[in-house]
Amino acid sequence: MSRFIRVIPVHEAVSRLLSIKHEPSEELVPLGEVLFRISNADIIAPHDMPGFARSIVDGYAVLSSDTIGAGESLPAMLTCTGRIEMGSAVPGSIVAGECRYVPTGGMMPEGADAVVMIEYTETAGDQVLVSRPASCGENYVAADEDFRSGEVILKSGHRILPQEMGVFAAAGILSLPVRRIPRIAVIATGNEIIAPDQVPLPGQVRDVNSIVCESFIRQCGCIPISLGIVPDEPDELTAAILEAVNQADAIFISGGSSKDDRDATARVIADLGCILAHGIAISPGKPTIIGEIRGKPVIGLPGHPSSAFMVMRAICAPLLQAMSGLTLPEQICSATLAAGIPSAKGREDYIRVKVRDGVATPLFSKSGLLHTLVESEGYVRVPAESEGFETGAAVEVILW
Amino acid sequence: MSRFIRVIPVHEAVSRLLSIKHEPSEELVPLGEVLFRISNADIIAPHDMPGFARSIVDGYAVLSSDTIGAGESLPAMLTCTGRIEMGSAVPGSIVAGECRYVPTGGMMPEGADAVVMIEYTETAGDQVLVSRPASCGENYVAADEDFRSGEVILKSGHRILPQEMGVFAAAGILSLPVRRIPRIAVIATGNEIIAPDQVPLPGQVRDVNSIVCESFIRQCGCIPISLGIVPDEPDELTAAILEAVNQADAIFISGGSSKDDRDATARVIADLGCILAHGIAISPGKPTIIGEIRGKPVIGLPGHPSSAFMVMRAICAPLLQAMSGLTLPEQICSATLAAGIPSAKGREDYIRVKVRDGVATPLFSKSGLLHTLVESEGYVRVPAESEGFETGAAVEVILW
Repeated sequence: MSRFIRVIPVHEAVSRLLSIKHEPSEELVPLGEVLFRISNADIIAPHDMPGFARSIVDGYAVLSSDTIGAGESLPAMLTCTGRIEMGSAVPGSIVAGECRYVPTGGMMPEGADAVVMIEYTETAGDQVLVSRPASCGENYVAADEDFRSGEVILKSGHRILPQEMGVFAAAGILSLPVRRIPRIAVIATGNEIIAPDQVPLPGQVRDVNSIVCESFIRQCGCIPISLGIVPDEPDELTAAILEAVNQADAIFISGGSSKDDRDATARVIADLGCILAHGIAISPGKPTIIGEIRGKPVIGLPGHPSSAFMVMRAICAPLLQAMSGLTLPEQICSATLAAGIPSAKGREDYIRVKVRDGVATPLFSKSGLLHTLVESEGYVRVPAESEGFETGAAVEVILW
Repeated sequence: MSRFIRVIPVHEAVSRLLSIKHEPSEELVPLGEVLFRISNADIIAPHDMPGFARSIVDGYAVLSSDTIGAGESLPAMLTCTGRIEMGSAVPGSIVAGECRYVPTGGMMPEGADAVVMIEYTETAGDQVLVSRPASCGENYVAADEDFRSGEVILKSGHRILPQEMGVFAAAGILSLPVRRIPRIAVIATGNEIIAPDQVPLPGQVRDVNSIVCESFIRQCGCIPISLGIVPDEPDELTAAILEAVNQADAIFISGGSSKDDRDATARVIADLGCILAHGIAISPGKPTIIGEIRGKPVIGLPGHPSSAFMVMRAICAPLLQAMSGLTLPEQICSATLAAGIPSAKGREDYIRVKVRDGVATPLFSKSGLLHTLVESEGYVRVPAESEGFETGAAVEVILW
């Protein structure tokens, strides 16, 4: 009885979409905007870092040889020749028998090869008593100890984290080559669809799928490009899709994917490119189209918002994540089912559930309704090889 | 020997900060910008939804009483009086013996109380043969079946998800009351600190902590306000902190937190408000200050970037998350230690580690250095009651 002749499994739909080669392009972005972007080249230290020898404690810069054998009972006595100011370019130098006060981060004076922490010293006039021996190299970092000029700070292909931003700042790297964020065009079709700011006449409904698509695209680390609402007319849809192909790296179209003879989406995709599948073994979401136009993936989502949303999770998310290089973190909890979930072998079911005290209640509803989208806390996936779960079965809930 | 007389545990520092009451204020934000914001009031359906009776399949709107007993061998024969166009405001009505074609989402004609899926029909001229009985209410949704006018769509205090954006759009809700995003001021102190776009003279270093702080604040769902670099002078720091208190909900100051007599941060905080603690039982990060000025939390972070960053994770993150209402998702992996981590009882250690094939290698380095920030994949926390972990110990790594 199916109007979908060749329904393909979910994993096959995903792999057909992923086989469309997406070459991420590069852009140079100012440092202040690269957080959580993906580096597209090795980032190199432009000079030695920190660039000068720095104390890492508050204390006295000394010649370690002056402190050999120093102890509480027999401290080394050194003459303090002043204090180094933070940020001072002229720390001067010390010779045997001398020391100089240096604060944490201060530049080491010439001649010094260690810093004695202030805790192990006492002062008497300009004399400093050192009650502990210092070893050569102690308590300071050399000019190139953090990074040597030319060393790789961060590898290509890495999502830039807050702490890494600081290392770029330290190196004076003011812009970075990062992957361009994929742009995903969103088109809503349907003669009954109006914009959310309009008041519907009887028979009209406000556009739900565009904003859900756009928000989901953002969640997956991509940039949505809204192309608005297009009537179910092949010419207008063709024009919109061509604009989308020019502007975006992939195209999501909602509505018009069923095989009703008035639904233009599949015909237009076939005219402009090719259909990779029409009909996927998923519930909800069977009347989904996947295609390719000029090397760009096109997904025709069902018009029912909850079906469209589950197809986004199952099929669009892997595509968007592959394109953006980012992973949607998945939070999973274990639960027992409050009611059975019947399913057909060969079909993946995505059942929205409410979770309370470890019990997941499936929310079945007519597919045109929205309320399960706000009532559910996540979903249970019934694999293709399963015939469903019985009441009380232990399941994993993928939380929104 | 400690210069920190009253060092307090990490959990005590966090609870003192959290005890400073932060009342989230509300703002009205356009629908297009509320994704992942937190609702600050129950969101109410302004009218019945979908607002009219809609078919949820492609098929024929019928009177269910006309189809009683219909089957493959003895179909019910109905006269089709036309087709309902999508978005049409005038679907008309049908009477006994009639049916009307209605596409998915189309408005039900008056008189009809069920829709027969097209799969169970055949047409002969304007006659439609129905091979299955339809029950009253089948395959359509009533005008108020999704939400009744006045019903709560989304509760207050909920982080708005992509699918929920769609429900607001459907309801024509064009702006929503959401919690204002907390603003966190960031001040860097230090006479040796210069902006990242400047070329350091010997003894100077570029500001690392500001951009790390600001990025981390973003990661925790708050908005950073950068107040730049302030010299270690009480008057200038006082002016900067007063500006911060005016503009922001909390203030982070990096540098100047140790007890070196030149470090002005603690004195200025004490003058303007009060010190809640100076010195925390954490490594790295012991010389951290927490305080309160005019009801706003103030944190004086250590100047060493890696120390400052670990204090952000341990102490600032709980504060920021409580203020923003968002939770930083924590990814944890199990590993065995490649080398022991010694620790002192009573102190929490945050040790950065590299993870390869289930083995975590602690990265010990002088505290002024940055490279462990880019080399590490996460950190191991040694609880206060532990004296550390031995080589080969099973640990949990909190990944960045």
